[in-house]
Amino acid sequence: MLALYLNDKLELRDLPRPEPQPGEVLIRVRLAGVCRTDLEVLQGYHGFRGVPGHEFVGQVVAPEDSSWLNRRVVGEINLACGQCLRCRQGLAHHCQQRQVLGMKGRNGTFAQYLTLPAANLHSVPEEVADDAAVFTEPLAAALQVLETAAFSPDSRVLVVGDGSLGLQISWILALHGAEVHLVGRYPEHLELAGAYGVSTYLEPEMTQKDFDVVVEASGSPSGLELALARVRPRGAVVLKSTYSGGYPLNTADLVVPEVRLLGSRCGPFPAALRLLQKDWIDPRPLIYRRYPLAQGLEALAYAQEKGVLKVLLECGE
Amino acid sequence: MLALYLNDKLELRDLPRPEPQPGEVLIRVRLAGVCRTDLEVLQGYHGFRGVPGHEFVGQVVAPEDSSWLNRRVVGEINLACGQCLRCRQGLAHHCQQRQVLGMKGRNGTFAQYLTLPAANLHSVPEEVADDAAVFTEPLAAALQVLETAAFSPDSRVLVVGDGSLGLQISWILALHGAEVHLVGRYPEHLELAGAYGVSTYLEPEMTQKDFDVVVEASGSPSGLELALARVRPRGAVVLKSTYSGGYPLNTADLVVPEVRLLGSRCGPFPAALRLLQKDWIDPRPLIYRRYPLAQGLEALAYAQEKGVLKVLLECGE
Repeated sequence: MLALYLNDKLELRDLPRPEPQPGEVLIRVRLAGVCRTDLEVLQGYHGFRGVPGHEFVGQVVAPEDSSWLNRRVVGEINLACGQCLRCRQGLAHHCQQRQVLGMKGRNGTFAQYLTLPAANLHSVPEEVADDAAVFTEPLAAALQVLETAAFSPDSRVLVVGDGSLGLQISWILALHGAEVHLVGRYPEHLELAGAYGVSTYLEPEMTQKDFDVVVEASGSPSGLELALARVRPRGAVVLKSTYSGGYPLNTADLVVPEVRLLGSRCGPFPAALRLLQKDWIDPRPLIYRRYPLAQGLEALAYAQEKGVLKVLLECGE
Repeated sequence: MLALYLNDKLELRDLPRPEPQPGEVLIRVRLAGVCRTDLEVLQGYHGFRGVPGHEFVGQVVAPEDSSWLNRRVVGEINLACGQCLRCRQGLAHHCQQRQVLGMKGRNGTFAQYLTLPAANLHSVPEEVADDAAVFTEPLAAALQVLETAAFSPDSRVLVVGDGSLGLQISWILALHGAEVHLVGRYPEHLELAGAYGVSTYLEPEMTQKDFDVVVEASGSPSGLELALARVRPRGAVVLKSTYSGGYPLNTADLVVPEVRLLGSRCGPFPAALRLLQKDWIDPRPLIYRRYPLAQGLEALAYAQEKGVLKVLLECGE
């Protein structure tokens, strides 16, 4: 099968089709999405070697006796051991032995086929097109901010960062009834939030402050600096971004105003699928370009250009 | 009146007795406690000039028509404007115009007399001796960790730092029924926590991990590093310490394990007084030395020595 493979650099390769192990299924990938985390993996994050990519929609093609056969699916990216203390305590997403699709010990979605445990799968409702379903994973990650911080419908919220994740977060908070503000760098991105009733600003124009919650999704340390400056005392900053270089935290910025800094990662797939099914969220305006998998190297190069939102790989045969 | 006064350096001075303004009372200070924050103020934190000190117990001596006259009191340290948006939203402790006793715009407790608004006062129950009542403010700050993080009686908690604040936090969490561990540097300090059933460790001996909550009260960046390494995924780190030099935060340490980093500051005086009244907390073993105010410079120098817990100033005439 055709796949992108990361060794010292990223290459297009012909790899053997993977064999599903007991409890697993073989999935033919229809579409895969490129996320900023994938770009970080290409830069050496996690020290991963293999097929990158973790966003996908596909079709189960084996084994023959699986109840999932022929179903269109999306899949959760953490593969827990199921045995350790953390798994038994309900922290399977944080299993220390876990594999992570396209990031840690497990080949990912930038390929014609992949294998996953059946336990990781979610059926895609008929109404959800492939190019919407491929957003299930990032939309779930966006939904997780609702779990991470206590939002109320009358919260006054600022989202920092107008990338794909920041925009999806702003939409979800708007659906929640909250008063949502988004600060970013690209007028054409901000427009995509305006459609959901979000108030938008380019960074130099942003003067408001004392937000109940600020969600930092910019991927840049200056975004966290802005977040800490604009949150109200006893408010919360939800951190969706990691920065390779670290952030010089002045602990007085948390202690004196009693601010909470909350790490937030993967989220609930079923909720994301419900929002897509109802068409309350339509992520497709985020799609900038689609490439066949055979042009995957070109696609990844394009995805790294400034201001590019979602890039999709068409992996079907 | 006699007072310690911080200008470019700390001096013993004879100052005019302060005049209570409308709504304020004049308090004769009986005992004042020296806190690490006071030592930071002496180093230039906040740029404060005036009488330092914020922990005290005293007696109201004026005005004659005050219902507080002759009562023994402790006092909250934040003086809010009462008018601004934050004050009206219940965030008076975070009023931007606020004065802070001995730290910002308001002379503090290292003096024979001080003034405070009557609204800041709490009556000291008869059963509570002066040298226990003087701990009301730090004990309230310790109690605030219960407000900051969601503890349950079966939480497994680590307190980092065996200074006066860390020890009081460990006691309070033990009273809460939690399984409490304390890591520190001084065997003689750790013994004071052992008396409350707290499991104690010197730093090199500390191997346990995956705590539900870690409270960082060490005042040192290495304490926060230890806290982040020992908290479980989806756990909380309560930050009671500020570090002048900042902390190089790796944001992945919060995002990947979905850890919450929670700033925590001042706490509830009435709860602290109830614990002291019942004798469920007896902070007096923390007292290392008492000095008359006239020997205040010597007292402050001693308080800065390594391993010294609470130093008290006897300010009464």
